[in-house]
Amino acid sequence: MLIVRDAFLGVSRFDQFQERLGISRNVLNERLARLAGAGVLEKVPYSDHPPRYDYRLTGKGRDLWPVLTAIRQWGDRYAAPDGPPLELVHRECGHVCGAVMTCSACGKPIGPTDVWAVPGPGAVEPLVAAAQGQRLS
Amino acid sequence: MLIVRDAFLGVSRFDQFQERLGISRNVLNERLARLAGAGVLEKVPYSDHPPRYDYRLTGKGRDLWPVLTAIRQWGDRYAAPDGPPLELVHRECGHVCGAVMTCSACGKPIGPTDVWAVPGPGAVEPLVAAAQGQRLS
Repeated sequence: MLIVRDAFLGVSRFDQFQERLGISRNVLNERLARLAGAGVLEKVPYSDHPPRYDYRLTGKGRDLWPVLTAIRQWGDRYAAPDGPPLELVHRECGHVCGAVMTCSACGKPIGPTDVWAVPGPGAVEPLVAAAQGQRLS
Repeated sequence: MLIVRDAFLGVSRFDQFQERLGISRNVLNERLARLAGAGVLEKVPYSDHPPRYDYRLTGKGRDLWPVLTAIRQWGDRYAAPDGPPLELVHRECGHVCGAVMTCSACGKPIGPTDVWAVPGPGAVEPLVAAAQGQRLS
């Protein structure tokens, strides 16, 4: 997750990741390979001799943005006594902003008490048993 | 995370968690204790003899809802060939809905290319170095 976070911040080179994350080259190598294998990052060669790669987010990787944003906001709220280390400015409106989850149908903000869980097309019995007709609370 | 997910679905009893997650009682005990220690769950006694507890989400735990929702939606998109196992219905508007991240200032949908990262009050040098004045992409 920290690798993906840094990739969103514009980091793409092995040495940059290593310096920022302070993990061993072996561990970093293994994690980058796993993220590439999962289709979250792609390796783009920038040098042939020696072979060197940029690690860039794929579409699937960029789609992790809401996940990272939600985690960051939760961390800012509960584990950032000095305030958030990083804030986002919305380019279009120019304001420092938080991300608010809203309903894709009506556009109003939604939280756990605003929705009901119902079985979807890929429903598996045990997962939905507790959810059926029940308010998420 | 699966424990927290189940807690959102209304599960609160040790035996229910165990049955749904299929993990050993020891591992479950240790994880429930860790979540309670982190202030995400609280133990609420429902029986004195023998001592038995409900595990309920605290406010801090309920604030994980956007994290779980974002993870679920990403999983539904990339790892649910049969369709989502679970869908949400917005109580107010009555529609099956997704959660869309919108700007807290202007209300428009936001994604990684719509925002810039700037150092916040709790900025730590290495974290923001790559972010300063840079578009998240």
